[in-house]
Amino acid sequence: MSQKTLADLNACSREDFVAALANIFEYSPWIAEKAADARPFAGVKPLFAAMTAAVDHASSGLRLALIKAHPDLADKTQRAAGLTAESSAEQNSVGLDRLSDAEYEAFERVNNAYRAKFGFPYIVCVRRHTRDSILRDFERRLPNDASTETQKSIEEICRIAALRVDQLVISDDRLQVHGRLSTHVLDTHSGKPAAGIKLELIELSALGASRVVTRAITNSDGRTDQPLIHGRPVPIGNYELTFSTADYFAARQVPMTDPPFLDRIPLRFSASDPEGHLHVPLLVTPWSYATYRGS
Amino acid sequence: MSQKTLADLNACSREDFVAALANIFEYSPWIAEKAADARPFAGVKPLFAAMTAAVDHASSGLRLALIKAHPDLADKTQRAAGLTAESSAEQNSVGLDRLSDAEYEAFERVNNAYRAKFGFPYIVCVRRHTRDSILRDFERRLPNDASTETQKSIEEICRIAALRVDQLVISDDRLQVHGRLSTHVLDTHSGKPAAGIKLELIELSALGASRVVTRAITNSDGRTDQPLIHGRPVPIGNYELTFSTADYFAARQVPMTDPPFLDRIPLRFSASDPEGHLHVPLLVTPWSYATYRGS
Amino acid sequence: MSQKTLADLNACSREDFVAALANIFEYSPWIAEKAADARPFAGVKPLFAAMTAAVDHASSGLRLALIKAHPDLADKTQRAAGLTAESSAEQNSVGLDRLSDAEYEAFERVNNAYRAKFGFPYIVCVRRHTRDSILRDFERRLPNDASTETQKSIEEICRIAALRVDQLVISDDRLQVHGRLSTHVLDTHSGKPAAGIKLELIELSALGASRVVTRAITNSDGRTDQPLIHGRPVPIGNYELTFSTADYFAARQVPMTDPPFLDRIPLRFSASDPEGHLHVPLLVTPWSYATYRGS
Amino acid sequence: MSQKTLADLNACSREDFVAALANIFEYSPWIAEKAADARPFAGVKPLFAAMTAAVDHASSGLRLALIKAHPDLADKTQRAAGLTAESSAEQNSVGLDRLSDAEYEAFERVNNAYRAKFGFPYIVCVRRHTRDSILRDFERRLPNDASTETQKSIEEICRIAALRVDQLVISDDRLQVHGRLSTHVLDTHSGKPAAGIKLELIELSALGASRVVTRAITNSDGRTDQPLIHGRPVPIGNYELTFSTADYFAARQVPMTDPPFLDRIPLRFSASDPEGHLHVPLLVTPWSYATYRGS
Repeated sequence: MSQKTLADLNACSREDFVAALANIFEYSPWIAEKAADARPFAGVKPLFAAMTAAVDHASSGLRLALIKAHPDLADKTQRAAGLTAESSAEQNSVGLDRLSDAEYEAFERVNNAYRAKFGFPYIVCVRRHTRDSILRDFERRLPNDASTETQKSIEEICRIAALRVDQLVISDDRLQVHGRLSTHVLDTHSGKPAAGIKLELIELSALGASRVVTRAITNSDGRTDQPLIHGRPVPIGNYELTFSTADYFAARQVPMTDPPFLDRIPLRFSASDPEGHLHVPLLVTPWSYATYRGS
Repeated sequence: MSQKTLADLNACSREDFVAALANIFEYSPWIAEKAADARPFAGVKPLFAAMTAAVDHASSGLRLALIKAHPDLADKTQRAAGLTAESSAEQNSVGLDRLSDAEYEAFERVNNAYRAKFGFPYIVCVRRHTRDSILRDFERRLPNDASTETQKSIEEICRIAALRVDQLVISDDRLQVHGRLSTHVLDTHSGKPAAGIKLELIELSALGASRVVTRAITNSDGRTDQPLIHGRPVPIGNYELTFSTADYFAARQVPMTDPPFLDRIPLRFSASDPEGHLHVPLLVTPWSYATYRGS
Repeated sequence: MSQKTLADLNACSREDFVAALANIFEYSPWIAEKAADARPFAGVKPLFAAMTAAVDHASSGLRLALIKAHPDLADKTQRAAGLTAESSAEQNSVGLDRLSDAEYEAFERVNNAYRAKFGFPYIVCVRRHTRDSILRDFERRLPNDASTETQKSIEEICRIAALRVDQLVISDDRLQVHGRLSTHVLDTHSGKPAAGIKLELIELSALGASRVVTRAITNSDGRTDQPLIHGRPVPIGNYELTFSTADYFAARQVPMTDPPFLDRIPLRFSASDPEGHLHVPLLVTPWSYATYRGS
Repeated sequence: MSQKTLADLNACSREDFVAALANIFEYSPWIAEKAADARPFAGVKPLFAAMTAAVDHASSGLRLALIKAHPDLADKTQRAAGLTAESSAEQNSVGLDRLSDAEYEAFERVNNAYRAKFGFPYIVCVRRHTRDSILRDFERRLPNDASTETQKSIEEICRIAALRVDQLVISDDRLQVHGRLSTHVLDTHSGKPAAGIKLELIELSALGASRVVTRAITNSDGRTDQPLIHGRPVPIGNYELTFSTADYFAARQVPMTDPPFLDRIPLRFSASDPEGHLHVPLLVTPWSYATYRGS
């Protein structure tokens, strides 16, 4: 899907506008059609507002059709049959195309239970989640009544759409759909930012295998050149951030025990606000460390 | 092996004395015989000093025989054939009777290499070590020359003997052969010791499976009723101590995110001084924590 | 006033018993007389309980007389005329004999206001307070009604009496009338207790001059040989505890800036529970420090 | 002294150029004259480099005259007779016009000793110092030989000149003559930046009175809207930064003792690098706090 500038979307034909935005809401071009009436848009925010307004004002029948247009999560048959390119990329981003058998079964079990109860698929904005948090969300929502879940589904659909709009449309303004996870290592033994510390961010999973999100080395400011997660939501879930501090101090000839008291320090924490800025710093000597939720 | 009081050992017949202490040094009753001449002993320290003096003053032939009297570590054939009860218990204490195949192979490989080079078995006081640190010690000592290793072996044999004496002899004085690993949880959110925190101490292994050393719950002073390790050496090696802090704060209705920013906090550290006191405390709020090597 | 053993107090004549305890409650021997009936006592706790029971069961007239038997705080005229030795020592302990003019005036003003309102002197157990906290207590109690203040006065009188009993009577059991203030310095630069750190505890005063409570040097365990305050209540009030850390690190050749980033570190805190154990440790490197209310 | 743009200085007459820069080096227009030959300048850095090159290449006689053109520090007679406006402002900035009698005497004593030994005034770039650090610098330099002090004087003169050029000339580039002192308060009780904390920065003085440098209130990010010191060097010296944390927690209904364990928290530290960025954060709960030299 090639990006469009807001100017192009304002200037192009109605047909091209609808074609460009047809899959912002999964297989539901009628939403783009409604929004087309409101052109031109001063920014991507009013554009997106026009699309969600169309959803808000739609009949309950149309809203239900919108919900039903979505695929089941992690469904092998549907994947074979074909999802929109957007759905496919989103599900892959969270690893739903690389599930362990145990995970597949867990997803399938709850998918089926959900569809059996409500008659429509379980929908969640997967890019805001890890596999663990999707399953937890599943289990929390299953006991709800149909009206609550209809509303929840629309909310999740709008979150999915916002991320798709953000990726598609180039504009001076931005939707607030990205978060950030960053770190900072301060060497309180020498009173300086710790440069050259190897670190690794892992997404922990209760059910399947943990997976490495990113590896990095701290720069002269004790930070990573790029935030650990940026330009996308920070998926809700459990993480472990590990710092190779003994290597760092050994390279500086700091006396340590053998084996070193602290070697690879793990910080284990959860992200709960995908659009927020989560800062997890480390203050460290060979004999002590501290961390906190920073800002 | 039933315990003896120092008074009994001073008062009993020479034969009984030697019989009681025959296996303090593996299959080497001649050391107890030498020591018998120095009776009575004012304490277990002079008793043990008399035994090590006998070793120090022995001919190099006798010393080599003492070394050769020891079994290979983790050797299945020798285990079947029979170790002294002491050797067997010691090797089991470090899990040498429950090695994974990979670990067995690693041990066998180095055992053989060591015996091939020096003509006598690799000896180490296993109760002062974890499996990982034994393998590391192995690898460090293998490049040594024979004279260095003869000396090292005698040192390790004396450490083994000291622990056996400590277990066997009841006396007012004690050999300094035990260490201690302790913790303390301070809740800096409420300014009080954290009572009721579940914690778990795990011995980490690079090669085989990690194993739980102990589980405990903090008492009203934020400590465990017993130190995590006590009454024995603290084995050299890598550990993870995990604290279930989210359960603790949730029980006190402290507002947290969902999922909680910190849930089960792991402290990963190494012990390097088996006879020392290692204190690893945790200062914690739902949003921050710190640890340090305490005393 | 010479100390008495509990055995002596149980065995001596009724006259001697009353004489010994006559001033436990200021100029009120009738309380000791009542308690004498309950001899012998199994410990100092039942002895003190018998005395407070006598106060509790006394007529309101007797209770008021007990209150009025007490001197004004920091009153120069009464001091000249003569207090009991006990009152004098207590008032001196908190520095009431060395007040600045501003402090004298403050005390006198509130004393007079209190006596004018209630017709009896303001009574407080001064050994549990600093000058600042006495003035604060004064101001809080002045708005109370007479019945509340009668009760408060009796409570304070019993606290004074408990401390006097604790000083006078030697027994296997002890009244819980002492607190403790302690510290501990951990050098997280080298991972060891910080030995040889000079420290100073100052009682801060909003009104008059601050005064040094104690000076000490940390021992090899990073502690002071004696707690900073012990064997008496920890007076409610504001304190500053200062640690000369730059001298310590300079003596160990640790590189620092010029002037050192941290030189004499002040911890400023309040004590609020005179009978509790307040522990105020310092974790320190040349570039960082932390403290917390420990236990 | 009105500011000039670099463009103006490049375009104006030689006379105007020299007039504008005549007092960059105290009463020494010959330096501006030399620099005028090198016009036009691509930035303020090459302009300043041209001026310092003129000093470097000057004869030793001229360099000595430059040194002697400077006034004594804190000299009442010279102040009456008239300093350059620049000198006067600089000396006032560090409080040299408001010295206590003890300070005046200290300055006078060392000034005289210095002039007696070297035959020229003691020169230091006062805007990089506090009164305490000037006196310490004085004492360190007095034992030097004349050649060392001639060189030191020229260095200090160039530092003075750099700050004057920075104030006078408007250019796209900037000389690196400013430092920064900043803070950040993180409330680890609630896991958020602490907003609304009152704080006060005091310059401590061993000899005279301490003085308030600035007061501020933390914003929603836990920072001050402006760094505590910025747009100028951070004077070498001792500081106390005090945070009113009990007010903050009380406003949030956090339970505390009475009086609060921590009320106004003082951090006492030194600045040693006037052109650096010194960050002194506070991590705080009602029961604990930590600080470190950040970046």
